[in-house]
Amino acid sequence: MNLVAAPLRLSTTSGNFEQEFTQRLHWSAEQDAAIEQRVADILADVRARGDAALLEYTQRFDGLHAQNVPELELHADELRAAFESLPPVQQQALQDAAARVRRYHEAQRRASGESWSYRDEDGTLLGQKVTPLDRVGIYVPGGKAAYPSSVLMNAIPAQVAGVPEIIMVVPTPHGAKNPLVLAAAHVAGVHRAFTVGGAQAVAALAHGTQTIPRVDKITGPGNAYVASAKKRVFGTVGIDMIAGPSEILVLADGSTPPDWVAMDLFSQAEHDELAQSILLCPDAAYIDAVQREIDRLLPEMPRAEIIAKSLTDRGALIHTRDMEEACAISNRIAPEHLEVSSRDPHRWEPLLRHAGAIFLGAYTSESLGDYCAGPNHVLPTSGTARFSSPLGVYDFQKRSSLIEVSEQGAQELGRIASVLAHGEGLQAHARAAEMRLLPTAQC
Amino acid sequence: MNLVAAPLRLSTTSGNFEQEFTQRLHWSAEQDAAIEQRVADILADVRARGDAALLEYTQRFDGLHAQNVPELELHADELRAAFESLPPVQQQALQDAAARVRRYHEAQRRASGESWSYRDEDGTLLGQKVTPLDRVGIYVPGGKAAYPSSVLMNAIPAQVAGVPEIIMVVPTPHGAKNPLVLAAAHVAGVHRAFTVGGAQAVAALAHGTQTIPRVDKITGPGNAYVASAKKRVFGTVGIDMIAGPSEILVLADGSTPPDWVAMDLFSQAEHDELAQSILLCPDAAYIDAVQREIDRLLPEMPRAEIIAKSLTDRGALIHTRDMEEACAISNRIAPEHLEVSSRDPHRWEPLLRHAGAIFLGAYTSESLGDYCAGPNHVLPTSGTARFSSPLGVYDFQKRSSLIEVSEQGAQELGRIASVLAHGEGLQAHARAAEMRLLPTAQC
Repeated sequence: MNLVAAPLRLSTTSGNFEQEFTQRLHWSAEQDAAIEQRVADILADVRARGDAALLEYTQRFDGLHAQNVPELELHADELRAAFESLPPVQQQALQDAAARVRRYHEAQRRASGESWSYRDEDGTLLGQKVTPLDRVGIYVPGGKAAYPSSVLMNAIPAQVAGVPEIIMVVPTPHGAKNPLVLAAAHVAGVHRAFTVGGAQAVAALAHGTQTIPRVDKITGPGNAYVASAKKRVFGTVGIDMIAGPSEILVLADGSTPPDWVAMDLFSQAEHDELAQSILLCPDAAYIDAVQREIDRLLPEMPRAEIIAKSLTDRGALIHTRDMEEACAISNRIAPEHLEVSSRDPHRWEPLLRHAGAIFLGAYTSESLGDYCAGPNHVLPTSGTARFSSPLGVYDFQKRSSLIEVSEQGAQELGRIASVLAHGEGLQAHARAAEMRLLPTAQC
Repeated sequence: MNLVAAPLRLSTTSGNFEQEFTQRLHWSAEQDAAIEQRVADILADVRARGDAALLEYTQRFDGLHAQNVPELELHADELRAAFESLPPVQQQALQDAAARVRRYHEAQRRASGESWSYRDEDGTLLGQKVTPLDRVGIYVPGGKAAYPSSVLMNAIPAQVAGVPEIIMVVPTPHGAKNPLVLAAAHVAGVHRAFTVGGAQAVAALAHGTQTIPRVDKITGPGNAYVASAKKRVFGTVGIDMIAGPSEILVLADGSTPPDWVAMDLFSQAEHDELAQSILLCPDAAYIDAVQREIDRLLPEMPRAEIIAKSLTDRGALIHTRDMEEACAISNRIAPEHLEVSSRDPHRWEPLLRHAGAIFLGAYTSESLGDYCAGPNHVLPTSGTARFSSPLGVYDFQKRSSLIEVSEQGAQELGRIASVLAHGEGLQAHARAAEMRLLPTAQC
């Protein structure tokens, strides 16, 4: 078999650049009406019939037979046993990765997740109290894309936030359990786990069943059914985000060995055929060198077919006028993963406004961030980095405003509130404020 | 007309408390399939035909005739003129409220919205960069519930976050403009404003039209059509939350004048008939006193009919065993507004885990917080305070992870990543990590 990985070559100076660029970026998460209807039916059924419905769907979709839902629970000893069955090098790698991820998220909590308050001159206290969610559900995909690293990346921020109950669901088609996933649940401190998946698992977490407790928020990636179900239960519970295909964008000034960049593009492309890998570079000769490395390295890759299709169908090598233009194009894309493969990455970083994660310098391959650098690998895809953020401790916390108005403060605030409330025609609001005015200050 | 406001009397010691309590709390945001379909059609049409479709729907639903969408823009001079036309006392109240809201949100940004980073022992940099969204849309309801305070509460956090372009949409049925809303847009620093509303306005903001620029996030309350449209465009753009009816819960130890508490219950009930006002108190005689004040004050209220219906259909006065039990019940409700009307509010505050905003002490009426104390009045409703937060500066920012792995750091991280990537069957990930290992350290 003679595989070819031929990413589209574009140049920003070409007349049809805009059109070709836009076309290559296009990816549509159009909702499939048939999937939407099936998901709505599954959600309603599990909500109405609980365990019985969950058991039936698990049998039908996963080929997993059980007498009752309690049989589908993975207990702590089974998770521990899975961990202990691993080769020591894998045990150590999981623990090292977990420790680094935990340390990063603890810094995140300290930097942006603590309660705060202040007092006005008149003694009025204002602030915000930050508290963890009571119970969260993390969805872990099973089957071909079963990633133990995703267990760490979902469970550890929840744990660092202080969530007392973390429930994992993971489908195990025909009963096939992935020992690394179970081991990761052990390492990450998951409290309970069930071998269910799909829209039926989302329904069980959102509404609760006789066996599965209702959670406050559901996070984690999944297929089209899971995504549709999460979107539908949003409001009843919180959700993290709706993930699209994964993407990498490499901004290169030509100083990184071209085989490193080629492999970084592969590491995105190997995820699946819809994944998108893009290189932006002002040096045409360097782009040629990366393409040569792509050709040279491709035959060595076990997942060469997926890589070839992904790069050919969705990849792009874009020649830009300069690095400034490359940064501007990157902002238009708002990529999930953004490598700044430059000898001077801090020169370009301030120009980069939208990205899930920014990997600075030649040594920072995306794969180091995916597994163990510390930051979360659950990142906004498909341009949603314009308005959303990596999964973090903040996703497992919520805030309550704190207000304590002093008697003195109520005098000034009462007058302002009274005027505005009358302006809105809300007289009880006005009266409630006026009642707090001292007799001498009554309007 | 002899109006009666008769909130349900419950006692936690009564045998059927659980059932009656659950029933009274029940509120279902069931999606109306007919509304959903109409909204889907409107979204698709505005997306496809842009201005032309927006103009048609604005004519059909708002009875507002214009030649083209640019005619529907409210320009800066019109907003300023609206402000200047107000009586000085209203001008001053708007400006005072805006200044306090701005000060609070600036404190919020400093406490939880700044970039941060740290370096590992091996020189690896890890952190998060916080940036404002490029452009946001704020939806302001028109018609009977046109609240200028909501303009301040949506626009000011966006402005404090540093959003360079804030677009307001507000329907003006039959061309009736609310001068206080326009004035508030002037005071809050809205950049552009259009007199459109409904699902068609949400569509225009989410997808952009020839005249209305596409935004990155849409915030603000609206009716069932607006809520359905926001939920549907979620993912294409960010949204804040889906609001349900407003609620207040008063925890009272009996030390606050009972007419104050009665008026606070009214101030929630006057919003609309679905609003919910609940009192929790361990003192039965005090509950009687509050009911007497309700009866006495009701006839004075201009919105007495709405108040009477809301309190009778959805209100409750609940006698608890003690304040601890009242706090526990409050946590089950996760109210939007929570007044701790106690002489010792700081004794109870630590027990309160879920609430949009907590108002401490007798002087802190909800109405002071609604207008001018400083914290946001856009709060999670219907129990969603279990997992979501007040609107804040963080809603108008997003985060990008920063990772810069040093050459030395890449040696340790590369080995961990390699083991885990091989375990997941992602060999390109492993190779990308291994390529960064120094020759002596190659696996």
